Amino acid sequence: MIDSPNVCVIGVGMSAFGRHPDESFEDFGKQAIDAALADAGLDYSAIQMACCGHAMQGITAGQRLLNRVGATGIPIINVENACATGSTAFHQAVMAVRAGVVDVALAVGFEKMQRGPLAADPRLAAPSQAKRSAPMPEMFAEVFRAHSKKYGTTVEQMAMVSVKNHRNASHNPKAQYGIEVGVEDVLGARMVADPLTLMMCCPTSSGAAAAIVARADFARTTPRKPATVVASVLQSERAASDPLAFVTEINTRTASLAYQQSGLKPDDLDVIELHDCFAIAEIVHYENLGLCERGEGGKFVEQGLSAINGRVSVSASGGLLAKGHPLGATGVAQIVEIVEQLRGESGPRQVRDAKIGLAHCQGFGGAACIHILAA
Amino acid sequence: MIDSPNVCVIGVGMSAFGRHPDESFEDFGKQAIDAALADAGLDYSAIQMACCGHAMQGITAGQRLLNRVGATGIPIINVENACATGSTAFHQAVMAVRAGVVDVALAVGFEKMQRGPLAADPRLAAPSQAKRSAPMPEMFAEVFRAHSKKYGTTVEQMAMVSVKNHRNASHNPKAQYGIEVGVEDVLGARMVADPLTLMMCCPTSSGAAAAIVARADFARTTPRKPATVVASVLQSERAASDPLAFVTEINTRTASLAYQQSGLKPDDLDVIELHDCFAIAEIVHYENLGLCERGEGGKFVEQGLSAINGRVSVSASGGLLAKGHPLGATGVAQIVEIVEQLRGESGPRQVRDAKIGLAHCQGFGGAACIHILAA
Repeated sequence: MIDSPNVCVIGVGMSAFGRHPDESFEDFGKQAIDAALADAGLDYSAIQMACCGHAMQGITAGQRLLNRVGATGIPIINVENACATGSTAFHQAVMAVRAGVVDVALAVGFEKMQRGPLAADPRLAAPSQAKRSAPMPEMFAEVFRAHSKKYGTTVEQMAMVSVKNHRNASHNPKAQYGIEVGVEDVLGARMVADPLTLMMCCPTSSGAAAAIVARADFARTTPRKPATVVASVLQSERAASDPLAFVTEINTRTASLAYQQSGLKPDDLDVIELHDCFAIAEIVHYENLGLCERGEGGKFVEQGLSAINGRVSVSASGGLLAKGHPLGATGVAQIVEIVEQLRGESGPRQVRDAKIGLAHCQGFGGAACIHILAA
Repeated sequence: MIDSPNVCVIGVGMSAFGRHPDESFEDFGKQAIDAALADAGLDYSAIQMACCGHAMQGITAGQRLLNRVGATGIPIINVENACATGSTAFHQAVMAVRAGVVDVALAVGFEKMQRGPLAADPRLAAPSQAKRSAPMPEMFAEVFRAHSKKYGTTVEQMAMVSVKNHRNASHNPKAQYGIEVGVEDVLGARMVADPLTLMMCCPTSSGAAAAIVARADFARTTPRKPATVVASVLQSERAASDPLAFVTEINTRTASLAYQQSGLKPDDLDVIELHDCFAIAEIVHYENLGLCERGEGGKFVEQGLSAINGRVSVSASGGLLAKGHPLGATGVAQIVEIVEQLRGESGPRQVRDAKIGLAHCQGFGGAACIHILAA
């Protein structure tokens, strides 16, 4: 497996996440790339390879975007892994640099999504294992019921995840829903899949994010303090007996490999962007990532341990729940947040002394992907 | 760039190419993977990573296929690059082994296509540069007209490409159109885009192909004589003034890099699978790959130099024109043909003393990808 001692992130950028009804993915995609290039102090001509993550923008969408920036002839790859698409594109860029194929690679994730629940796309409806033929909200409602029955996790604790992430998003000008809300607001929102209300479900979103990775020796020639990629792990699903077992197994396994690859442990983490596609997912992922014991996830948020400057700051950006979730962009946007946090550039949502950050995505269908970055 | 001295192909397999109206991509995809595993003498549990090439089978189609073979939890990546999708998946698998990320990786390409011209898919209609808003046959008709005007290339020479490739396909039980035809048959077929007749255009096809790549030291533990990957080059488009300039520039550049990476020259090649999506494309690619001087492509086929056991055997499998062209599968199927030729296992279409083979795909939109393999 990759241990990537010499791969760094040298520039990041993203567009605002939101509806973007009047912009094409090429429009906001170019904003993200231009921002990342400016951040790295590079011209696009310095980019030697591009890994483009998008789930449903059609054939060679990556090339269509990059031709807006400059048709330089570099290798371009379109990558898809459902909701872990952006993470997978970043993973591929890291691998290319690690392989010595190139010195500098661009990972860009982008998506222009329509309104409405994701399962309306028939291509997402084909489950591989377990009971995953239900639309996503129903599946996560079942995850909640199982977790609640086994460990006593409450609907209020789910609401607290949403409150926290919306509060964080209110300090993120790129977030789709940067609004302060209370537990009662979350509980009183429209019911989507009992007991998950609308505010416990991530929105459909459009937007883009970009990260430039490079060999450490190249990184030293660029202006910004590089963040080093100390783990880059991609895994796929194994059979599972039920949705909770499913959400638990793949993510716990991926986290374990990432800790092994980096030589780090959960206690070492300062800031985490995880796949909070639904509020219950964040709770279960606290446990999957080893932040607390199995079954203690609900109390973890209730006690404020995942708040900014809590024991570990989780979803400081607002997460998928409030920042938004444009499928292909999300995984790269997590890297943007982690890198800015490690640099101390996150303004009112800055985590104190952030030295180690973890980004985690899960794509149902499926894939889990974790990166750990060090300042 | 990769020079891949230690990456080998240790097993190959493919399904028949054809319409497959009653089979899903999972059905024929599994046939290809099972054949490649059997060829390599491996169980699926030995595969450490999978790169899945498909252009339009929907989100996480690779996982849907691989879950049929075994949900082992390995990293799975879905890759797309239009008609170079399969080549790009193979390129990614080679890169992963070259990077030391894994010892053994599977590249699988598959596609289930509908009838009718490809440009009916609106996702293929977005051109990046030059005059490429026309459907593919019209674009290649323009390539022919420009080549004919400049160099005197004839419609009959195009027909000879089709005759040769159909003849080769008649010795390939996996080919979609393994029928012997004459120049008059090709010229008399239905006109698609004047002067390109139906038999000068590749069909829409369904099918799958798989190749297993491994480090050389692992390859020595497997039963078949490995083929070594001596060049693996992916490039994307630059702006071009017209379709002929466009088809020339990207492919000539990619070939030049592949020769540079391998230390080989066109004269060293024994067998070539190239992107003969239209008959004129094969003629122009003779020139792009340096098999003959610029403008001499028409004479090259007319003089029989690209026939099996000619100066260099081109499209011995039947090529895209007669073997068929399931987008995601094509690039991997080319590797299957080259590996079997290098092993001397191609039966009545075997090229004598085949030691060096080249596979070339071009995906409009776009990408060009070349691999060179050595026995």
